[in-house]
Amino acid sequence: MDSLTFKNDKLFYIDQTQLPRREVVKECRGLDDGFRAIRRLEVRGAPLLGVFAAYCAYISTKGCRGTRRDFFRSLGRVVLRLKSSRPTAVNLFWALERIEMRAQLSRARTVTQIKQDVLKEAKKIHRQDRDLCRAMARYGEKLIKSGDQILTHCNAGFLATAGDGTALAVIYEAHRRKKKIKVYVDETRPLLQGARLTSWELTKRKVPAVLICDNMAASLMKEGKIDKVFVGADRITAGGDAANKIGTYGLAVLARFHKIPFYIVAPTTTFDLAIARGRDIPIEERDPSEVRTFLHKVQSAPGNIPAYNPAFDVTGHELITAIVTDRGIIRAPFAKNIRKVIQRTSLT
Amino acid sequence: MDSLTFKNDKLFYIDQTQLPRREVVKECRGLDDGFRAIRRLEVRGAPLLGVFAAYCAYISTKGCRGTRRDFFRSLGRVVLRLKSSRPTAVNLFWALERIEMRAQLSRARTVTQIKQDVLKEAKKIHRQDRDLCRAMARYGEKLIKSGDQILTHCNAGFLATAGDGTALAVIYEAHRRKKKIKVYVDETRPLLQGARLTSWELTKRKVPAVLICDNMAASLMKEGKIDKVFVGADRITAGGDAANKIGTYGLAVLARFHKIPFYIVAPTTTFDLAIARGRDIPIEERDPSEVRTFLHKVQSAPGNIPAYNPAFDVTGHELITAIVTDRGIIRAPFAKNIRKVIQRTSLT
Repeated sequence: MDSLTFKNDKLFYIDQTQLPRREVVKECRGLDDGFRAIRRLEVRGAPLLGVFAAYCAYISTKGCRGTRRDFFRSLGRVVLRLKSSRPTAVNLFWALERIEMRAQLSRARTVTQIKQDVLKEAKKIHRQDRDLCRAMARYGEKLIKSGDQILTHCNAGFLATAGDGTALAVIYEAHRRKKKIKVYVDETRPLLQGARLTSWELTKRKVPAVLICDNMAASLMKEGKIDKVFVGADRITAGGDAANKIGTYGLAVLARFHKIPFYIVAPTTTFDLAIARGRDIPIEERDPSEVRTFLHKVQSAPGNIPAYNPAFDVTGHELITAIVTDRGIIRAPFAKNIRKVIQRTSLT
Repeated sequence: MDSLTFKNDKLFYIDQTQLPRREVVKECRGLDDGFRAIRRLEVRGAPLLGVFAAYCAYISTKGCRGTRRDFFRSLGRVVLRLKSSRPTAVNLFWALERIEMRAQLSRARTVTQIKQDVLKEAKKIHRQDRDLCRAMARYGEKLIKSGDQILTHCNAGFLATAGDGTALAVIYEAHRRKKKIKVYVDETRPLLQGARLTSWELTKRKVPAVLICDNMAASLMKEGKIDKVFVGADRITAGGDAANKIGTYGLAVLARFHKIPFYIVAPTTTFDLAIARGRDIPIEERDPSEVRTFLHKVQSAPGNIPAYNPAFDVTGHELITAIVTDRGIIRAPFAKNIRKVIQRTSLT
């Protein structure tokens, strides 16, 4: 089961909001479908958003029957709208820019040919994402030894990418190599990606897992039950500051206090070298009603109380032990080493 | 509206599991009612548990029609059962021991007279709890200045005591004195006492409040939006280590990292001088299904995943800025200063 499938010129995806109760596959038929799927988090996970957005750009413009100029106007509109769906995930921007660039490079060709080139590029992004996951898994699993108890937050698994994931790919690889591990899963309020998605993935892959509420992690660390923390990232700056699901920063502080290594796992596509410092990363604020409810099904608080709902927080590089990427493990000094690794070869 | 009322020889309480949706008052008619109300957290909050258990001991034995020996046997059974309901809250033990002691002191009198003495003692505990709240409020509010943004966890308000609360009593007093404050409320998973009870209380008392998920506190601290943390406690050791709702310890670590004062507010009845160190406090583990669900109404995780559900954690005294009690504010060195304050006068 893949989080996303492109088949017979159609784009299918698992509606992640219905997990773990039901495994529902939906088709994305165009821009409105795609925008809604991203906004509602039916499709989520920074790397998967890139792949999905690339295919969605193709699906949304393939029916365009005008001149070359009409096609480019349509593509521009599609890209702009998709970019506005989730401001923090840089992979989304990166993938859409690759699609636009590809189209521009083909602009001397017929509209039909340009569309085919756009599709080829989307498929390439898809294939590359799987390869990136494999590479991160291989580098990262070396950090895990048999007997480790690992804490993870949100979902950074096969539902978040086109491959095996980022942080979870590392865990799956260690498990595959028969290392004895146990994974504590933060439920990850408000939208419970840990409880709903990571628990479901680990159960499906038969990795020993224990679910906890986010506020229990500190206690486990104090009791010596956490050896390492592995999480994903939605955007990483040139200096190594990482935006990830709200709650990540707190875990990093707690890990530091308890002298526990704190690892970020993210493909090189997650780096945004145009941003120097974490405080300059735009943070998406979502509907406060997510905080007052449990997936909009049960209300927990009085309806009129204000709530604060940032979707992400930023962990400063000084709290990060290392960043596992598809090109190797990056350690401090981050600014220098990130520059070295990212510029070694071009991204595209 | 009081969290608990004793009237016409009957014991009434607000069923807190139904808040904030409905304000339901229930009657406790005997031991089974009382035990169930405590176990299910219909009645909760360390100080309130003491008052409730004392009345419940009276209600559960007042119908006893035997000899003096029968009465004492019945009282012993009632006390033992009530003590087993929640192992961490020391006020429960303390109040029941006062009831037993009172009965013992009256053992030369008739059974009817002993019952009346037990009731008098319960009423005294009730009255004293209100006085303790008032005293804590007066001492604690001095720590708050106009403009403060305060973080609180769980519920330490008028629902948790027979008076205005512990941590929230301090906040209410500052608000009453027209200090301009804003309170951030941790929702407090898994049972959401912050979202359900604290939000409801603050809204009712018109104190500006903002609800957050537990994992957002670190981010707020980093952004400079939290000036002080105020929480209650369920048991405090002779050395000043404090057991409180799960998540409290993590907040204390985060507060330390961000150089934010961290205050515990608790009556002297919460101190358990028989215990020297926090690690010796028994911690209640509750049903894992509380973690996999939202109040048993919506399932969040796959049904078969193991979950960890400690109800409390322990914050070491080294992370506590001060403990606000009904007899003044205690600061480090805690062991010495606690001894001084607690032994100044006898508790009963």
